Parts: sequence; structure tokens; C-alpha cells
Amino acid sequence: MTPAPVDGPGLQALSPGATVLLKRLDTLLEGWGTGSGATPMIMPPLLPVAALSRLDVYDNFPHQALVVSTLDLTQHQEGASHEKFAQNALEPALFGLPSAACFAVYLHHEGRALPDGTTVTVLGRCFRREEHYDGLRRLLGFHMREIVALGSHDFTQEHLRRFEERITALADALGLTLRKEAATDPFYDRGGQRALLQRLSPVKHEFLVDDLAIASLNVHRNFFGERCGITLDATGHAVHTSCVAFGLERWLSVLSARYGSWEAATEAVEKAAVAFGGVAPAGGAAR
Amino acid sequence: MTPAPVDGPGLQALSPGATVLLKRLDTLLEGWGTGSGATPMIMPPLLPVAALSRLDVYDNFPHQALVVSTLDLTQHQEGASHEKFAQNALEPALFGLPSAACFAVYLHHEGRALPDGTTVTVLGRCFRREEHYDGLRRLLGFHMREIVALGSHDFTQEHLRRFEERITALADALGLTLRKEAATDPFYDRGGQRALLQRLSPVKHEFLVDDLAIASLNVHRNFFGERCGITLDATGHAVHTSCVAFGLERWLSVLSARYGSWEAATEAVEKAAVAFGGVAPAGGAAR
Repeated sequence: MTPAPVDGPGLQALSPGATVLLKRLDTLLEGWGTGSGATPMIMPPLLPVAALSRLDVYDNFPHQALVVSTLDLTQHQEGASHEKFAQNALEPALFGLPSAACFAVYLHHEGRALPDGTTVTVLGRCFRREEHYDGLRRLLGFHMREIVALGSHDFTQEHLRRFEERITALADALGLTLRKEAATDPFYDRGGQRALLQRLSPVKHEFLVDDLAIASLNVHRNFFGERCGITLDATGHAVHTSCVAFGLERWLSVLSARYGSWEAATEAVEKAAVAFGGVAPAGGAAR
Repeated sequence: MTPAPVDGPGLQALSPGATVLLKRLDTLLEGWGTGSGATPMIMPPLLPVAALSRLDVYDNFPHQALVVSTLDLTQHQEGASHEKFAQNALEPALFGLPSAACFAVYLHHEGRALPDGTTVTVLGRCFRREEHYDGLRRLLGFHMREIVALGSHDFTQEHLRRFEERITALADALGLTLRKEAATDPFYDRGGQRALLQRLSPVKHEFLVDDLAIASLNVHRNFFGERCGITLDATGHAVHTSCVAFGLERWLSVLSARYGSWEAATEAVEKAAVAFGGVAPAGGAAR
């Protein structure tokens, strides 16, 4: 089947088989979160530029940023065939498309005092402008499931250890050969001091199948806690945060390569879900 | 709980209870679609401006439009605290945020010949700039579940009749008093001829609880078929299309008012799902 015009670079419609697999996989991962006490939430699909700016997003990732404008109706010509809107047709951009699902979690908790051991799980559609796009492996718009920990330093470290074990076990169950690698994260890479610190104590680890990162473990220390004024209720200090993130279309890519069809891959994920003690999938609803 | 800074006008985080209810409700509605033979798909979250322009979106709804730009890095100042990005900081907008979930379905099928009786169901995040926002009743970004029919005129009419019955029965089961009203749709409202035709034969009906439309039935005749070059394989003529659309946050709003809590509303939806012959909900995963 030839790609439809809507499937431009970085944007793809998921076939029915891929759609079912994405939902099954996400149900498993969300269940890991909620089964560990995470509260499931749905976050706003756009975030204010001013809020993302407080998180240094536009300093660290300006080349990846996508921002949202309304149209300047005084410039709007009815009946025109629009290929694009030039700058003078746009009003200033007040909203940004998120590049990671967890940003909204920190911003949502801005100014709050939280108990240690707070976890939240979200599925977000995330957006990154890239130099090149590559099928389901590198998209402009993609799904990211995250399980986010907020609390003491120890808790946020334990959170990552717990999910590292599960990721490894899931890859085993699915017959995926996974490699763990330290990665750099430009959130902490700007000053010489921080760059040095990061080499001594990496803040991001990725799990790769061949050369494709399908999941990551991220330590933020108290960066988001400080920027968003989120405190640990017992101490009044800024919370530490960490998150485990899954790029769902990338899982689809490696699973379809491993199993040869969406149906076989979906069956494998359903079996793994049962083995992980998850509930049976909802079955007929989306098949 | 005070609204978090991220919950600006038109953008809201859904609480854990609201999140679970939205998923349960959507599972029921998606099941209506797939149970009737619809293929479930996930569509790209952004669509090219040029594609949406072919559907007259920017002629009919320019005031509601939200479009997406990358940053002009030659204008970008590192370390600046961004409240918004002025026009001269933006590159031309190539992508639009969809205002309805079904646009991507027509664009995905562009240039194809389809069998009569084709149905597709999608859940989309949709975006409309409004003069005023109002809690979950009127949002800038919201979830829309649609079940879309493509085929003969008769099939697209039968599609709406079938789902009208279900919507009425679901409202009964949930204790919601529903009113059906003809509505105007600016897609067909531009010329005098079309406006007249629409009054004689409405192309949009809404189902309202008090003054809030929570679902709609939409007849497009062969408008999208012609614009997208989608043909009926048996005749070679442009397909007719129709769709049934559900604004999920609006359902949340009326259900929480009716039941007094997310939990009670979720229980009512789960009971209704069983009564409708749907599968049992996935249970623990998201509770």
C-alpha cells in the first residue's frame, strides 16, 4: 500500500494491526505503573511557551521545538489555497508541543508539597523536529509512555532500579536482545562542571535494540523540583525526580521486525502481559 | 485543589478518576465501532496545512485554526525567558492541529478506491481556538472519538441511523436526558444555495444534555470523497461519507454532574458497557 499524502515525513497513520499492538503494549506498561501505585493521568496536549521555557526546553532543544500559533485574521485571505502560513499570517506563539511526556507532570505539580514516593504515569503524544525521519523509528510526532517518580533521592533511584528489572525481563520474554548504554542529556550538558559530572555519574541510560533506543531511565536530581517549586512535604526541600520512558512506535518497529506481523507481535505482548501478572487484555473491543 | 499553572484557559490535566472514566468510555465507544466492522486506526497528530486547506478548513474555520511552526534559529536567543515567540522568531507554519478527528481519515484514503461499507474508528486529540473556555465543557484541546463511514449514500445514512439508536440507548442506560437538534455546519453554509439546502435537509444533528452537545451525527454527502479523490470501487464515483462523533471531555462533564463522582460515573459506564454486550473492562490495569 503506498503511503497516503497525509503520511508525510515524520507523520504516519498506524494501520489497524499496529494500532491494536500499540494499545496492548501501552496497557501493559500503564499496568506496570498503576500496579506500582502510580496515578494515571491525561495531561494537556499543549503547554504554555512560558512554562516550557522555565524548564530550559528552548535553550536546550531549540532545534527540535515546535510551537503553536493562531492565525492573524486581518491577514487571512479567504479562498486562498494554503501550502503554509508565512510568519506575517501568524500571531505570536503562546503554546508549545511537548517533546517529552513528563514535562506536563512537573508543571502540573508546580508549587505543591508532595509525599515521598509519589508516582504518576502518563501517555503523551510528543513532538520533535529532526533532520531526518525514518518510518516508525524516528517520527516528528510519536507516543511516549512514562512512569515518573517524585520524592526523595533514594526513592527516585529505587524507581529506576525497579523498572530496569522489568524492562530487561520484558525484553527477554519478547525475544528482544537489549543493550543498556549511558547517554548524554542536554539538560545537564551545558556547563563544563555539569558535563564532567555527567561523565562521572550518567543521568540518562538508554535500552537499545541494535541501534534503536526503545526505552530510557532518566535521573533529573532536583532540577525539575527546583524549577517548579515542588517540595517534599517532610523536609520542605525540592523533590528529586526520575522517569522511565518508552517510545511506543519504536517498540512497534522492533516487534514487527522480530515477529514478522502485527498479529504475531500482539500475541507475544499479550502472552508477556499475562506472564507479568497483568490482567488479560480487553479482547474483542479493539480486535 | 487549585488549578496548576499548566491548566491554563482551554487546557486541563485530567485527574486520575477522570482519566480512568475517559478510557472506559472510549473503550465502550471504540467497541461499538469495531463490533460493527470498523477498523481501528491511530492517525498522525498533525496534518499538513496544504492537506487541511484542500478540505476548506482555513476558509470555514480560520478563527479556530491552530498551526505549528519550528523556530527560526537565526533569531533564537539562548538564555532568554520566553513568554511567547513573536512572528519573526517563527518559520512558516507547515502543519495544522486538527479540529476534528475524521479529517485525517479522509486524507489517509486520498486517491483510493474503497468497497462500499468501509468504516474506520479513531480517537483524536482535536484543537479549536475559542472566544471563551469553560472547564471540561469547552476546551482548546480535547479528545474526539469518531466512527466514520465511507461508501454509498445509503450506507452512510444507515450508519447514522444505527448509531443514533445506540446513542439514545446509552443515554437512557446512563440516566442522561438527551435532546436531538439540527445544527448548522459551516462546511455547507457558505453559499445561499447551500444554506437553503441545509435548512431543508440538515447535514448535522447534535445530541445535547441541557445546552451541551456531547455527540453529533454528520452527513458530508460526497464533499470529502470529491476533495480527496476517494472513489467507490464498484462505480468509480466519489464516495459519500458520514461520521458519528463524541466529545469525550463533555461526556465526562455531564457524567460527573449526574453521578457526583468519577468513581460512580465510571461504575455506571462499566455497567452500561456490559449491558451493551461489550467485553468487560480491562479492570485493574488503570484503576
